[in-house]
Amino acid sequence: MAALSFELAGVDSNSKARAGVITTDHGVIQTPIFMPVGTVGSVKAVTQQQLYSEINAQIILGNTYHLYLRPGVDVLEAAGGLHHFNGWHRPILTDSGGYQVFSLAENRKITEQGVLFQSHIDGSRHLFTPESVMDIQRSIGADIIMAFDECPPYPSEYTYARKSMELTHRWLDRCFARLAETPDKYGYTQNLFPIIQGSTFPDLRRASSEYIASCNATGNAIGGLSVGEPEEMMYEYTALCCDILPADKPRYLMGVGTPWNILEGISLGVDMFDCVMPTRNGRNGMLFTTQGVVNIRNKKWATDFSVIDPSLDCETSRYYTKAYLRHLFVANEILALQIASIHNLAFYLWLVKEARLRILAGDFDSWKKNIIPVLKQRL
Amino acid sequence: MAALSFELAGVDSNSKARAGVITTDHGVIQTPIFMPVGTVGSVKAVTQQQLYSEINAQIILGNTYHLYLRPGVDVLEAAGGLHHFNGWHRPILTDSGGYQVFSLAENRKITEQGVLFQSHIDGSRHLFTPESVMDIQRSIGADIIMAFDECPPYPSEYTYARKSMELTHRWLDRCFARLAETPDKYGYTQNLFPIIQGSTFPDLRRASSEYIASCNATGNAIGGLSVGEPEEMMYEYTALCCDILPADKPRYLMGVGTPWNILEGISLGVDMFDCVMPTRNGRNGMLFTTQGVVNIRNKKWATDFSVIDPSLDCETSRYYTKAYLRHLFVANEILALQIASIHNLAFYLWLVKEARLRILAGDFDSWKKNIIPVLKQRL
Ligand SMILES: [Zn+2]
Ligand SMILES: [Zn+2]
Repeated sequence: MAALSFELAGVDSNSKARAGVITTDHGVIQTPIFMPVGTVGSVKAVTQQQLYSEINAQIILGNTYHLYLRPGVDVLEAAGGLHHFNGWHRPILTDSGGYQVFSLAENRKITEQGVLFQSHIDGSRHLFTPESVMDIQRSIGADIIMAFDECPPYPSEYTYARKSMELTHRWLDRCFARLAETPDKYGYTQNLFPIIQGSTFPDLRRASSEYIASCNATGNAIGGLSVGEPEEMMYEYTALCCDILPADKPRYLMGVGTPWNILEGISLGVDMFDCVMPTRNGRNGMLFTTQGVVNIRNKKWATDFSVIDPSLDCETSRYYTKAYLRHLFVANEILALQIASIHNLAFYLWLVKEARLRILAGDFDSWKKNIIPVLKQRL
Repeated sequence: MAALSFELAGVDSNSKARAGVITTDHGVIQTPIFMPVGTVGSVKAVTQQQLYSEINAQIILGNTYHLYLRPGVDVLEAAGGLHHFNGWHRPILTDSGGYQVFSLAENRKITEQGVLFQSHIDGSRHLFTPESVMDIQRSIGADIIMAFDECPPYPSEYTYARKSMELTHRWLDRCFARLAETPDKYGYTQNLFPIIQGSTFPDLRRASSEYIASCNATGNAIGGLSVGEPEEMMYEYTALCCDILPADKPRYLMGVGTPWNILEGISLGVDMFDCVMPTRNGRNGMLFTTQGVVNIRNKKWATDFSVIDPSLDCETSRYYTKAYLRHLFVANEILALQIASIHNLAFYLWLVKEARLRILAGDFDSWKKNIIPVLKQRL
């Protein structure tokens, strides 16, 4: 079918924020967008029905490392790809597994060829190369697939960061080559996004951004941020990368972040975000709401019978009360995890939808400045 | 408002099965019915929306012991009762806490007055008496509330079982007296169901059934079964109790059971059932389906892309495949618990609905004989 395309629908005049539309073979995505993380093909504690109708997710993530280990490529191929395996028929993006190999797997050994590692589940040995990771992502069948990269920790030595970036660039060439040699498996087009690295060194970030921009991919990603560096530094390098990346292609800032991180990222020209924060923090009882941050385990909510967030167009957020949700957390009920996860994701999707409306209306920048202190306050 | 009423809609000619309609101030219940267990005000891993629209639950249970400890009567009263606390606006039944006091609490001391026990959560000391348990159930506000009883273990000595039954009867008188002295708290009528005890002794069961029948309550319960005795013995005592209980009042067999236990109970004249089996076994990967029992963790389901049960009118059962659900269990995903719980409850509700249709159609007994071997088979 057709390669991913991107249309700009509006640009903010007081910032670099953009509203756009990405078209894939599994449907359109209105940007800026937040993508819920569905690690092994399930967004934790949320059903696909809830993703469709309560959260209004437009695209979800899958993790190549996790899906490769469980259920494995054989099962995914037999199913006809992840969309048919998990019943999510809107767009899917898969990461390359690079990040998990470096954060979860054991006994990693990096060579020019790729990474040899042991599974965090059973210790079994595996080799990921740019080629094998492209093949795995072919079998998973996501609409957007990510290049195999090394994500250096923060802080890194300059020499290490430079060598790592150069390796990532050479691996990228091999990813593109492998993808060109192999056909789409399920009749729709898969799109490879390259990833900028370069740690926290301006000249490396610039060089990497220029190299990635020169690839002329259908979309581009900024990796290696939100790994422990100060927020201001994250914004600085996001700005640097965005300014070099082509304006007519979507920009994806990987693994970011808090609601305010996302609004700042949008103002710098980012179009796509993903993060485990809404679901992970939700499972720990931390709720993001239009009025501020709620620690729902706090005693103060015990008899607060107001609903979680009446401003959201999400049945869960408008149905259950803070008192009931607090009770479910205190009593260790599974339903607590479900409600908090659905609500937080619905909030994130509301946030990017609202940002998009403000960009199109022309008042994004002032709206952002007013709303960030509200969203940040602890209730 | 009005006391619970019961209308018989049909009686099977080849068994004692009945179809009926219970009317409460929170709506009607078509019998025979299965009641999902919502221990602390939440049916584990299931949202209220799913209970309404996927499972079609008509009434759910709450546990007085659990709700008394968490969130406590103050919170429930401030909420206006459990219906408003958890957002379930169809009928609710609460047990009396007796069963949990004997199975969960520590350092129990039984006297004529009541039971002194320590919370299984924090070791705090509490006294349950027939009066206090009625007061607690007033605060919870269920439509059907259960008498405070002692449920003797199986097997019990005759003398112990007789003394226990006599105590339960004296406690029952105090329950009725307390209820008569205290008004409904939330404007609708609460109905007390007395409970037959007597362990596995025919003369005690008969005496208890006669005593309970003489109370002229709006409904009656059979307790103290499904506590470890052989299935045939459970059926024998269920039959004995049913035959003495009035035919024009609903009969509730507490804590039963497997799908085939429920069908046998229906054939003996039982109208209401509850059990943690569909949710608890579901969370362990055991599925009840219209084709038989599935251990979804089994390797054989890894590439079975058929849906869980296409015969049920439940979106979850018809949407997710066995292969996907198996993968979710193997990967320890919370979504596995949700899908399995929803499916099993939808199956139980389908089972009693189908039984009702067969009773009304006049072929319940032959349908039951044909379907039990199918439901029991291991797939
Ligand atoms: Zn599809
Ligand atoms: Zn109500």
